[in-house]
Amino acid sequence: MAIAAKTVTDICAEAKAASRELALLDTATKNRGVLAIADAIEASAAQIITANERDLEAGREAGLEAALMDRLKLDETRLAGIAADTRKVAELEDPAGRVIREFEMYNGLKVRKVAVPLGVIAVVYEARPNVTIDAAALCLKSGNAIVLRGSSVAANSNAVLAQVARDAIAAAGLPEAAVSIVTGGDRDELAELATQEGVIDLIIPRGGEGLKHALKSVATVPVIYAAAGNCHVFVDAGADLDMAEAIAINSKTQRPGVCNATETLLVHKDVANEFMPRILKAMDDKGVRLHGDARTQSLSGAGGPEVLEATERDWTDEYLDMVLAVKVVDSLDEAIEHINRYGTGHSEVIVTPSEQSAEVFTGSVDAAAVYVNAASRFTDGAEYGYGAEIGISTQKLHARGPIALRELCSYKYIVRGEGQVRG
Amino acid sequence: MAIAAKTVTDICAEAKAASRELALLDTATKNRGVLAIADAIEASAAQIITANERDLEAGREAGLEAALMDRLKLDETRLAGIAADTRKVAELEDPAGRVIREFEMYNGLKVRKVAVPLGVIAVVYEARPNVTIDAAALCLKSGNAIVLRGSSVAANSNAVLAQVARDAIAAAGLPEAAVSIVTGGDRDELAELATQEGVIDLIIPRGGEGLKHALKSVATVPVIYAAAGNCHVFVDAGADLDMAEAIAINSKTQRPGVCNATETLLVHKDVANEFMPRILKAMDDKGVRLHGDARTQSLSGAGGPEVLEATERDWTDEYLDMVLAVKVVDSLDEAIEHINRYGTGHSEVIVTPSEQSAEVFTGSVDAAAVYVNAASRFTDGAEYGYGAEIGISTQKLHARGPIALRELCSYKYIVRGEGQVRG
Repeated sequence: MAIAAKTVTDICAEAKAASRELALLDTATKNRGVLAIADAIEASAAQIITANERDLEAGREAGLEAALMDRLKLDETRLAGIAADTRKVAELEDPAGRVIREFEMYNGLKVRKVAVPLGVIAVVYEARPNVTIDAAALCLKSGNAIVLRGSSVAANSNAVLAQVARDAIAAAGLPEAAVSIVTGGDRDELAELATQEGVIDLIIPRGGEGLKHALKSVATVPVIYAAAGNCHVFVDAGADLDMAEAIAINSKTQRPGVCNATETLLVHKDVANEFMPRILKAMDDKGVRLHGDARTQSLSGAGGPEVLEATERDWTDEYLDMVLAVKVVDSLDEAIEHINRYGTGHSEVIVTPSEQSAEVFTGSVDAAAVYVNAASRFTDGAEYGYGAEIGISTQKLHARGPIALRELCSYKYIVRGEGQVRG
Repeated sequence: MAIAAKTVTDICAEAKAASRELALLDTATKNRGVLAIADAIEASAAQIITANERDLEAGREAGLEAALMDRLKLDETRLAGIAADTRKVAELEDPAGRVIREFEMYNGLKVRKVAVPLGVIAVVYEARPNVTIDAAALCLKSGNAIVLRGSSVAANSNAVLAQVARDAIAAAGLPEAAVSIVTGGDRDELAELATQEGVIDLIIPRGGEGLKHALKSVATVPVIYAAAGNCHVFVDAGADLDMAEAIAINSKTQRPGVCNATETLLVHKDVANEFMPRILKAMDDKGVRLHGDARTQSLSGAGGPEVLEATERDWTDEYLDMVLAVKVVDSLDEAIEHINRYGTGHSEVIVTPSEQSAEVFTGSVDAAAVYVNAASRFTDGAEYGYGAEIGISTQKLHARGPIALRELCSYKYIVRGEGQVRG
């Protein structure tokens, strides 16, 4: 059944009802639903591509930039990739039903703290239509119903993808309202979604600061922001400079447009004279534009790359681009202070041979992931072996780091007795 | 140093700085601080009681009701109790530093997911001054700084208790700003506290709906509501009626003013004829006033207790009093539907001999704690063996059920490598 004519409130209510059914399904049944989606994506490739072409055509007319057009595009190969990723979700461990703690009370009551689906999860996302299926598969696998709200730019693609998923789920005997989509693009609809208290259990926005602020001002349901990453690499005194260079270059340049890419390099003064000229040159060779403090500028040396004067904004901004802020610090403590002041609590790196520095850094830096002698780019559900993820959380409550299957669950205490009452 | 002259923002900034130090302390040092508070409470008993008498005097003049005056009162015995409870916190397992998950990545990176303190926790509470010390001890033990905001009714008591704790902590060599108090009682101050983004990591209100709404409309920092409990006991078909009576009576009457007390009794129609007359009489004998649906009213029988006609509000209200709503349901499904519609997701009970009913009930009822053949009154940190708690959460994110030491922690990933970069 088509869902376009329903209100957001109707759609959410149906999702809630479906979530009650989903919570009771066993792993095999949920996997059957996930695999049915994968098969249907492949079987409906022509229909999906036709819808996608309408979005691409509208995008061309609207003059969307090339990178956005590329993210929007679906073809046979990409659909096969989406189907393959979906099948991988079926292979992951079912997070629901996991016994987190189990104990017997003094009076013989048997207590199990058991992971349970959150219920209904809303995912708000931008132009990439593959998120429609990735997020739906993760929610279904974890026993949650999902309400999707994509970008209007991908409206045709998303509507068909969601409908294909719904039909596949229904044919597999699962409630079709496990996957729903809110198709419009206006902000009123977002506000309606974000205020479904008692119905939507969690809303996860995947997008920029504009979306974040739009949600912050209206949301009354719980939100986890798949957030920005202003990540740092700190090269400590005594660091192996070959290792430091490899880590800094990889953290900055391997994929500069993602949240776990590094934005600022901090260099201990004891190694700055030796390290700074070579790392600035290496970054410049890779095409990285440099913004540095006065000491960094002076260390670029004659014939070295240009280093623009860094301003306060260079310490706060997430460039998501081939730009790096660079600063000399006098001590480990200054590095930690800088990171805790300007960082977004995402992924932070120390390159050091000192166990003591590593202990102080990992203990003091307030971030989702803290790395000793490794690149910042590893903060990722797939890299951690958790499978796919909906995003990376930089908040401290509930989920910090990858938001993967386990993070889509709450828990409940199930307590069994034989008539115990409280004395 | 006295803190009265500082602004909320100053106090919170100092708490944040203290939290950075606390996060690095070992268990023995934190325990030393907790025990120092316990000793100081006893050593300063006279001073605390003098301050408390000023609050009691003001309360008498303001005509506070007897129950509130009793909660406000501190004497030697109660202070000894607070000190004893504080010493128990020192004996509990340190929640910070616990390794939650540990694995090695495909490339040899060693990943540890480690529990860490949240940072700064604000606790907003009502008249009971013992909360000042209970909450401070739990936060200190878990490595968090606390900012307290008590009721103006207990302002003198709370100010002295907090100062005694600060002095004790400082004398034990810990940062005194680990425990801070915001002394005034106006709502502007609450708003200032609730909008300290990036400084206050969590705010926990312990109080009624007024406080909850006041916070909901202003808070921009994360909030966990120590929430209301509209709890149910469902007596299934085939239930052991002696057990059902004992559980229902205990759940309703053992301490009716607390959140895990039961407010509604649901009885399956198959046992209603036999069970209803006896349970209504037993409740009446205990002094419980009864509000029931038409079937319940008709089953009270000749000479049975009066059953007022239940209205919609009887299904929604948390009485916190010797009042019980009673309803006959046609099926297990109707009971579950009623609970999921009207319950607050706190503690729900089924009395049943049927394993299948128990499975469906525990799977379908959406609550922090679901009991099979036991009273609702067990949802409590101390009962679960978690030690003291700050409250019971009915939300699904982060903490559900008792908010005890582990729930006052977040986690971070600490990843150690030997120069790994991403390919």
